[in-house]
Amino acid sequence: MNTKILLDENEIPKKWYNIQADLKTPLDPPMHPQTKKPVGPVDLEPIFPKELIRQEMCQDRYIDIPEEVRDIYTLWRPSPLFRAHRLEKILKTPAKIYYKYEGVSPPGSHKPNTAIAQAYYNMKEGIERIATETGAGQWGSSLAFATQLFGMECKVYMVRGSYDQKPYRKMMMQTWGATCVPSPSPDTNSGRAILAKDPDTPGSLGIAISEAVEDAATHDNTNYSLGSVLNHVCLHQTIIGQEAQKQLDMVDETADIVIASAGGGSNLAGLCFPFVKDKIDGKNPDVEIIGVEPAACPSMTRGMYAYDFGDVAGLTPLLKMFTLGHDFIPPSIHAGGLRYHGMAPLVSRLHADQLIDSTSVYQNEVFDAAVMFARAEGIIPAPESAHAIRVAIDKALECKKTGEAKTIIFNNSGHGHFDLSSYEGYFAGSLVDYEYPAELIAESLKKLPAIS
Amino acid sequence: MNTKILLDENEIPKKWYNIQADLKTPLDPPMHPQTKKPVGPVDLEPIFPKELIRQEMCQDRYIDIPEEVRDIYTLWRPSPLFRAHRLEKILKTPAKIYYKYEGVSPPGSHKPNTAIAQAYYNMKEGIERIATETGAGQWGSSLAFATQLFGMECKVYMVRGSYDQKPYRKMMMQTWGATCVPSPSPDTNSGRAILAKDPDTPGSLGIAISEAVEDAATHDNTNYSLGSVLNHVCLHQTIIGQEAQKQLDMVDETADIVIASAGGGSNLAGLCFPFVKDKIDGKNPDVEIIGVEPAACPSMTRGMYAYDFGDVAGLTPLLKMFTLGHDFIPPSIHAGGLRYHGMAPLVSRLHADQLIDSTSVYQNEVFDAAVMFARAEGIIPAPESAHAIRVAIDKALECKKTGEAKTIIFNNSGHGHFDLSSYEGYFAGSLVDYEYPAELIAESLKKLPAIS
Repeated sequence: MNTKILLDENEIPKKWYNIQADLKTPLDPPMHPQTKKPVGPVDLEPIFPKELIRQEMCQDRYIDIPEEVRDIYTLWRPSPLFRAHRLEKILKTPAKIYYKYEGVSPPGSHKPNTAIAQAYYNMKEGIERIATETGAGQWGSSLAFATQLFGMECKVYMVRGSYDQKPYRKMMMQTWGATCVPSPSPDTNSGRAILAKDPDTPGSLGIAISEAVEDAATHDNTNYSLGSVLNHVCLHQTIIGQEAQKQLDMVDETADIVIASAGGGSNLAGLCFPFVKDKIDGKNPDVEIIGVEPAACPSMTRGMYAYDFGDVAGLTPLLKMFTLGHDFIPPSIHAGGLRYHGMAPLVSRLHADQLIDSTSVYQNEVFDAAVMFARAEGIIPAPESAHAIRVAIDKALECKKTGEAKTIIFNNSGHGHFDLSSYEGYFAGSLVDYEYPAELIAESLKKLPAIS
Repeated sequence: MNTKILLDENEIPKKWYNIQADLKTPLDPPMHPQTKKPVGPVDLEPIFPKELIRQEMCQDRYIDIPEEVRDIYTLWRPSPLFRAHRLEKILKTPAKIYYKYEGVSPPGSHKPNTAIAQAYYNMKEGIERIATETGAGQWGSSLAFATQLFGMECKVYMVRGSYDQKPYRKMMMQTWGATCVPSPSPDTNSGRAILAKDPDTPGSLGIAISEAVEDAATHDNTNYSLGSVLNHVCLHQTIIGQEAQKQLDMVDETADIVIASAGGGSNLAGLCFPFVKDKIDGKNPDVEIIGVEPAACPSMTRGMYAYDFGDVAGLTPLLKMFTLGHDFIPPSIHAGGLRYHGMAPLVSRLHADQLIDSTSVYQNEVFDAAVMFARAEGIIPAPESAHAIRVAIDKALECKKTGEAKTIIFNNSGHGHFDLSSYEGYFAGSLVDYEYPAELIAESLKKLPAIS
């Protein structure tokens, strides 16, 4: 039996799946940060192209993927679905473990699925330059890759702490023609103000967002772009789950358990939304869908479902989502991509409706799983992706106890080539298992903005 | 038309192609470094398994690939053949450019094709531990990956200069369970002797080879393993070219020009030998086959075809090959994998018989090509692989002048995720275009050992 289940390029889905069409309860609207009234399309036009704003609010079940976008997807898509034969053997489990591998994209993760789409729509509407922020660098390098393919400029504000620690990510963006600066930078008013107060600050995602938004608002033909959380980002990622379903069909499998790590939520949305559809439709009503969060930043598992700001400074629209509070500062763990205080509104709605479960795990057990996986299957996963691997292994071990041959699928959302120093820290025993104290979460939740 | 031409797993070749069966002139035998008499199988048994020694000297045209090896190959093989549509468009060339992409293997290059086979045969003969050397780290990480999959131990002596500059490679080996130490190390007599004289030495491949061979000779159940040059290594790599031919057949193409970079020669052998067979057989007599060397280390292009040692210290058997002299120290260029004074005896024989051409290129023009490729096709290539890209682009530009729609295929032998600091150097303008002075090459060739 094959290790990889491959689809031909003409089987790349022609439409993204928009789960807004199938929600039991519609999404609560985003609210203006000052007026606290619903935000309309016009409010978003200064920084987003019209088509992405349309997709953000669209209720159609399927949205066509433009030919030019599918054409670029062929550079790495369809991504392979692997059967983890060797891992199953080591675990001595009757479970069948499958994983979708998004690390085959040139930037090495699932992020370009939306970066390509976003760059395309911006280009079509005459935008020549995009500004964005990046933490660990996955998103920034994906947008650099995407804008290069459409002949656009790209400016990335990278949190200074990561910029200094992960120099390869910056060089990758440079190779694809983007400009990457450490944030706070002297290039924006907000950056200059922070540097004046604290020249040695390591920066934060909140600061970098402020700089990128200011950049987009103050430069001609420049828009802003976000790599997770928003509805249109989740939408673009559904190509992962749609492909995975076709691949499972090819080997006559039906998923019993679907697992993905969850930071801002787009990776989880990408693999899981098509399976949530099957759960809603009754096609596969008993499928268990699990988002895996770090114990250090468990927004779904321990947060509150409420309106909150997307950023630390409180400049973005208010979104109804599971949140730990917008001024919650997660401890510094090695899965930088999962350190976000909130969860995508769509994922949050489905979690509130009990269609998606969540759980949280500690980083040492995550790296235990990552190393076991790398030694069995070869691929060294990103620490973010290894959160899903941890739970997939745990579920397979439960099957060993019960004797059930369940079909487990998870998203191996990226490789860990730029995260090897985290592995070194793990082997050296220097990783701390943070659990955020309940009273601090309660404290931070007290500061949620009031919405009438 | 598809971007990727994919083969199913059951199309992984079942046999390696042994070009020794088709040589016009048989290989000259390896000679003992002291006696200068031909080396027999028994001389090699202290450090190599019997089956690899047999393959080294075998004259059969095809050698079965063991089922267990093919099974592990499925973790990434068959590797994709890409049509470089976007690059062709940018070049405005009528040429059709195809590339085989070996960067999909977990260690990121073609090296595991032989690492898996070598680990397997050692395991079958009861060996529990393998020692090897590595320069930039591609080979060491591939052998770490391979030995882990067969439950063996692995010790890698990594040239100290690279060990310090490329820490991620060491962490990768550690993740796969291998021990990697900087060479010279205090773990061997040869290492200790050199450290006593010069504690701050950056080391060299020659020193690391001495340490690994000594380790294998002085430890129970331990063998030595080499990642290029030898006949059995070239043999195992022929899976690349065999797959590529099937893939070209699928799109009804016949190669006009086949291009691969050449350091020790195994990458060149891997893609090209099956095409050399077609040239010899008369199936495709006019196919042009080109090995691309760095101008800083041009063994085929400017070396002599003569017996020489494989290492600096003169401890290995003498091999008849194109060489720049065993004490030739190539300048420090960014394609560390191509800094070897000699060329595989099989490749050398075919070059002497004018079946394989060679050319050499400078590193700045190599990085020009690498960046153009990364911006067109997405994949950031290793500097070694980019040597082939440079010549593929040059050939495509010649086609633009002549109007010929030639079919060009090259091997994109690995990704550049661990080489991004070289790209940074390129962008900073700090790369030097070395050309080794003719009088220094002549000087070094004067010291070739005399063989009666």
